[in-house]
Amino acid sequence: MELAEKLLMGDRRAAARLITLVENKAPEADEIMRRLYSESGKAYIIGITGPPGAGKSTLTDKLVKHVRKTGAKVGVIAIDPTSPFTGGAILGDRVRMSDLATDPGVFVRSMGARGHLGGISEATSAAVKILDIYGAEYIFVETVGVGQSEVDIVKNSDTTVMVSVPGLGDDIQAIKAGIMEIGDVFAVNKADRDGAKRTAREIEMMLDFSHADWRPPVKMVIAVDNKGIEELFEAIEDHRHYMMRSGEFMKRRAENAKNELIEMVKSRIIEQLLNHDVKAERVEKLAMEVAQRVTDPLTATEELIQSVL
Amino acid sequence: MELAEKLLMGDRRAAARLITLVENKAPEADEIMRRLYSESGKAYIIGITGPPGAGKSTLTDKLVKHVRKTGAKVGVIAIDPTSPFTGGAILGDRVRMSDLATDPGVFVRSMGARGHLGGISEATSAAVKILDIYGAEYIFVETVGVGQSEVDIVKNSDTTVMVSVPGLGDDIQAIKAGIMEIGDVFAVNKADRDGAKRTAREIEMMLDFSHADWRPPVKMVIAVDNKGIEELFEAIEDHRHYMMRSGEFMKRRAENAKNELIEMVKSRIIEQLLNHDVKAERVEKLAMEVAQRVTDPLTATEELIQSVL
Repeated sequence: MELAEKLLMGDRRAAARLITLVENKAPEADEIMRRLYSESGKAYIIGITGPPGAGKSTLTDKLVKHVRKTGAKVGVIAIDPTSPFTGGAILGDRVRMSDLATDPGVFVRSMGARGHLGGISEATSAAVKILDIYGAEYIFVETVGVGQSEVDIVKNSDTTVMVSVPGLGDDIQAIKAGIMEIGDVFAVNKADRDGAKRTAREIEMMLDFSHADWRPPVKMVIAVDNKGIEELFEAIEDHRHYMMRSGEFMKRRAENAKNELIEMVKSRIIEQLLNHDVKAERVEKLAMEVAQRVTDPLTATEELIQSVL
Repeated sequence: MELAEKLLMGDRRAAARLITLVENKAPEADEIMRRLYSESGKAYIIGITGPPGAGKSTLTDKLVKHVRKTGAKVGVIAIDPTSPFTGGAILGDRVRMSDLATDPGVFVRSMGARGHLGGISEATSAAVKILDIYGAEYIFVETVGVGQSEVDIVKNSDTTVMVSVPGLGDDIQAIKAGIMEIGDVFAVNKADRDGAKRTAREIEMMLDFSHADWRPPVKMVIAVDNKGIEELFEAIEDHRHYMMRSGEFMKRRAENAKNELIEMVKSRIIEQLLNHDVKAERVEKLAMEVAQRVTDPLTATEELIQSVL
């Protein structure tokens, strides 16, 4: 079990290796995670999300460099929009972060959406814990899309930064509206572009509808020029202090843990169904019967639940 | 049970009502769905997906109007990117489709992402069946995002149209690459824009890597000007004929049914956990213990699975 000891000592390679074991669902990963779990919980987890094209990678890069000035160890998990079917290539976009990878105080990991059952959110949440145990003081989790699974991923975070950008059209505004509620801090990136003020104003207007104790600040940034990054990070720290003061911190962590447990129950049950030859065959047979209208989905579902129980 | 009879007679209001019952998880909906399921399976289901801003709504609108020339009854299900937390407003974008709503041969329904447990994919797949029983010959399912849950929704389809658009940047290209595999037909919308040919060429190049029997055609369209719509629909029909000829049709329907059953098993199990007071309390308690590092997620998950079984 030397991998566990190495991770506790802050060994980078051990962290990388363990994340790979988790992604591959290796049984020894479960054992290590169980044993080391109590060592996690110290890192502060910052989610970075928003529509494609908002410049999240660049923004994350600059935030990380800013945090690094304090000497704090940083972890970055970038969720790649690879195929949910076969895994896939690593985003060219992430390559931009490669200069971070040469900084020994920063651990960058790209994760694909492969593995449909356990799902990316389970693997991400394990990776967050591994980097936490490894000794990262801040962990940035950056997603690419804005679908529901991305929202699930962000639900690992203590503070979520929602990145917007002017001029992405109605479609994207609507999506943004849809996931507004998960933003603790808003960043309007590419703030030198036409319409940036209007985008910020629209966000403020949406926030006016909320009556939560915490009013999310809206910060203008130009990530490529490193402008507004310090102020954005201050806003993140403000939210952190609010969370600590108000007791919301532990409430959110419990809520996040609840979501994690629900996801794990789901994936474990389905594994029991599909990793067992006889049961897996039954699934295929019932699926064909449903497709041919010999049986209906509800009856088939009940039969499958019986076979797991 | 007159709702069921009315639906079989092709009553619009009965269809609308039943979809609402399904969304609200009303027990009587389960009963009707079980009874009428064998009447479904006749409609051809076309999924429309692609990145935000690709013009999917307009494209769907034009496709529907084209199909309507043949007199065929059409159903449209538009997935709204409303909040996964509280439901939410209907997209302004969809309002553009409202002239379709005045055509008695078209049934348009917007569905939100509300209801995190059962999930939008389960509700969508029930709505598809209801419109099928209602008598729609073609059902279009249009998604807004390009996340994993959107991919799940599209997996209800017999033919999936992947809509691209020139000039959306690297981020979106990468996402597109990630979900390329689910496209049976590709549409490059806004084909009069700079870079449209390049976008089409990039798609063709990606398709060169595939060795599947069906080579997805790539069609240039300008949806707002109604250009290329007829050719796009012909490509959809070509795919349909290929599916029928090759036997892939029933294989795909069985694969889709399998995904549906897996989702239903998951949501039913979680319902059992959370709708039962004592068990739900146990979930909350364990989540807090996990957050406080008193117990680890794997041990908590095993305990929860035991409590369901």
